[in-house]
Amino acid sequence: MDIASYKERVEKIHDELETSNDMTGWINYPLMDHEELFNSIEKLKDEICMEADVFVVIGIGGSFLGARAVQEALTPYFGVLEKGTEVIYVGHHMSGSYLQQLIHYLEGKEIYINVISKSGSTMETTLAFRVLRLYMEKRYGEEAAERIIVTTDPEKGILKAIADEEGYKRFAVPPDIGGRYSVFTPVGLLPIAVAGIDIRSFMDGAKNAALELKNADLTQNHAYQYAVIRNKLYNEGYCVELLASFEPSLKKFHEWWMQLFGESEGKEKKGLFPACVTYSTDLHAIGQFIQEGSPILFETLLHFNQIEGDYIIPYDPRNEEGLNYLAGRSFNEINATSKQGTALAHAEGGVPVIQLEMEKLDAYHLGYLMYFFMKACAMSAKLIEVNPFDQPGVEAYKRKMLELLKKK
Amino acid sequence: MDIASYKERVEKIHDELETSNDMTGWINYPLMDHEELFNSIEKLKDEICMEADVFVVIGIGGSFLGARAVQEALTPYFGVLEKGTEVIYVGHHMSGSYLQQLIHYLEGKEIYINVISKSGSTMETTLAFRVLRLYMEKRYGEEAAERIIVTTDPEKGILKAIADEEGYKRFAVPPDIGGRYSVFTPVGLLPIAVAGIDIRSFMDGAKNAALELKNADLTQNHAYQYAVIRNKLYNEGYCVELLASFEPSLKKFHEWWMQLFGESEGKEKKGLFPACVTYSTDLHAIGQFIQEGSPILFETLLHFNQIEGDYIIPYDPRNEEGLNYLAGRSFNEINATSKQGTALAHAEGGVPVIQLEMEKLDAYHLGYLMYFFMKACAMSAKLIEVNPFDQPGVEAYKRKMLELLKKK
Repeated sequence: MDIASYKERVEKIHDELETSNDMTGWINYPLMDHEELFNSIEKLKDEICMEADVFVVIGIGGSFLGARAVQEALTPYFGVLEKGTEVIYVGHHMSGSYLQQLIHYLEGKEIYINVISKSGSTMETTLAFRVLRLYMEKRYGEEAAERIIVTTDPEKGILKAIADEEGYKRFAVPPDIGGRYSVFTPVGLLPIAVAGIDIRSFMDGAKNAALELKNADLTQNHAYQYAVIRNKLYNEGYCVELLASFEPSLKKFHEWWMQLFGESEGKEKKGLFPACVTYSTDLHAIGQFIQEGSPILFETLLHFNQIEGDYIIPYDPRNEEGLNYLAGRSFNEINATSKQGTALAHAEGGVPVIQLEMEKLDAYHLGYLMYFFMKACAMSAKLIEVNPFDQPGVEAYKRKMLELLKKK
Repeated sequence: MDIASYKERVEKIHDELETSNDMTGWINYPLMDHEELFNSIEKLKDEICMEADVFVVIGIGGSFLGARAVQEALTPYFGVLEKGTEVIYVGHHMSGSYLQQLIHYLEGKEIYINVISKSGSTMETTLAFRVLRLYMEKRYGEEAAERIIVTTDPEKGILKAIADEEGYKRFAVPPDIGGRYSVFTPVGLLPIAVAGIDIRSFMDGAKNAALELKNADLTQNHAYQYAVIRNKLYNEGYCVELLASFEPSLKKFHEWWMQLFGESEGKEKKGLFPACVTYSTDLHAIGQFIQEGSPILFETLLHFNQIEGDYIIPYDPRNEEGLNYLAGRSFNEINATSKQGTALAHAEGGVPVIQLEMEKLDAYHLGYLMYFFMKACAMSAKLIEVNPFDQPGVEAYKRKMLELLKKK
């Protein structure tokens, strides 16, 4: 695919992003010295892991998707955490059933809560915080204030005022970093640390990505290459990008990715619709559509070469299913082969396939990858000439809902 | 929207479906007498709930998506089941990490396993069954045979042969019912029962849907109306249908729905791409795209009027966030209002909105709804002149993967 023709536009946008002061604080954030912040997060994490059974994070959109993505990718599928404390998310929807069951589940458990909202005025989060704050006060009395942590704007907003009034611990969301670009700030770092994940390694990945992807040269910068390829395919008429990964623990990562791209690009009647699948599961579900359905999508295969944990296919002398030829190989090896098979089959079916290879599924590489996607996303949105950092359309349903609520 | 012009085509397709013998066994299956089957499933369920801590279901695609959808929709978000036994799914991907952790998790727990595969030859399922079967034999010796249940074709295939040889309990997948239409057969019913859900109520819902939706008259048949509206929108150039629901427990239901429509319609370069969102969570993520992005999608809002469990918004004398005007109302009520707000906002943004209202989120109404979608899907696929019951494209990646595996 000829991408060289994008060279000058990419350089121009790169310079714009590097020199802009408009919500671009995330670009250099991982390069700054955060030693003091890391220490205070780690100290608090140690306290929480010592004192609490459950850490409840109250947030919606960019205030929880990043932390949850990293947490689910790097903690066990079954049973309890070996290190770290159970993290539960709430305040990201209006389900009364979920909230009732959560309160029931918390009975008899030691709790800390962390409300995360830049504005402090999103209704889902604010209502859940009201419930949990009253619950904490009932449970812990005056001690509650030591178990409530607020992550919000450092200068303004109702949450900041409440935290100052009540003496809650407070972390700052830098004002020039928007929600979906905030996973490397305390928004993401505190819950990730509490889940037992090494935030220094995570931030090292982001830092190295920030260094490597500072290169304006399209032939060197993989994030810009990805953005350009997406743009070419979009211009050719593809309207859906399907991100496919091969490990079920990445499902929440998909949701983070969908917000990042969907909210950054989906405006002014433009943008690729972001969708996600987990293989090989979904090859037996939506796979038929991808292979032979409407030719509206291209596919980005995300593969990690090393995954913690594996299982060797055992030899079975009965061999009724004839699979002894695979005995001694590992499931992860077969999984990697299924990725190759998928790429070949879909390409033959006429689906453009982009392949992203990461060395290892760990904190470092997730940090790298999330920064990579953020940089690619900003470039990509600028290539279709929309603002990557606003979300004017999110207000529409909020306004309608408020009107309806106040009418009653 | 004028749908009357579809009247004759719908009647013709209705007659075709009713009189066809080609994989249409699901149409009248809920109307047949299954008393003996229900009794034997319930008896086995009682045994499993008495003897086992974990019921492991091994299956992929239509062999697990339906059961998992119903289970997740109707069992608690947190903690252990009050009735029923924990159900865990495996064999639906190639993750060695997942399998290793599952085996570790099973140590010291009492287990039953249920392998579900019509053909008995799907690699993901077959490999996982090999692992779990050997594990069961090591754990239980000869008693293992009493704890292994096979759900497969009643006449042929390797799983049937193994079950007969070893004396495993066996349930039949009717040969004229394909995987994605099989949730009302033992494929779905046994795991659903073990999870503590009333299968008779579930089947009553399906039965009533089967009766009501036998009506060829488009003005009376809601499933056909839904199919026709989808078809009109597809012909107008919309290429993505977004199913949106308002309860996070419906996420796995979404995956079942995506397979049903994606695999039934996505062929011959045709079909609507099925995507799903959970509100209000995703209004703060992909919501921006829906409101203002590329005008490629329409939306189907799925709402249940009654949900088990709710929470009343408390009064807080401090009222810093100014939300006391909502005190005394319930979260589910606010959630319903957010649905109204969403419908208004998206319609104003130019997104066509279909609304599906169900009375209650329970076994009966899920049974009704799943049958409704199956009937709508068959009609919908026939309206774009593809076969709703095959999936030729799923073989493509399997062939490629097998070639690669055998080469090594």
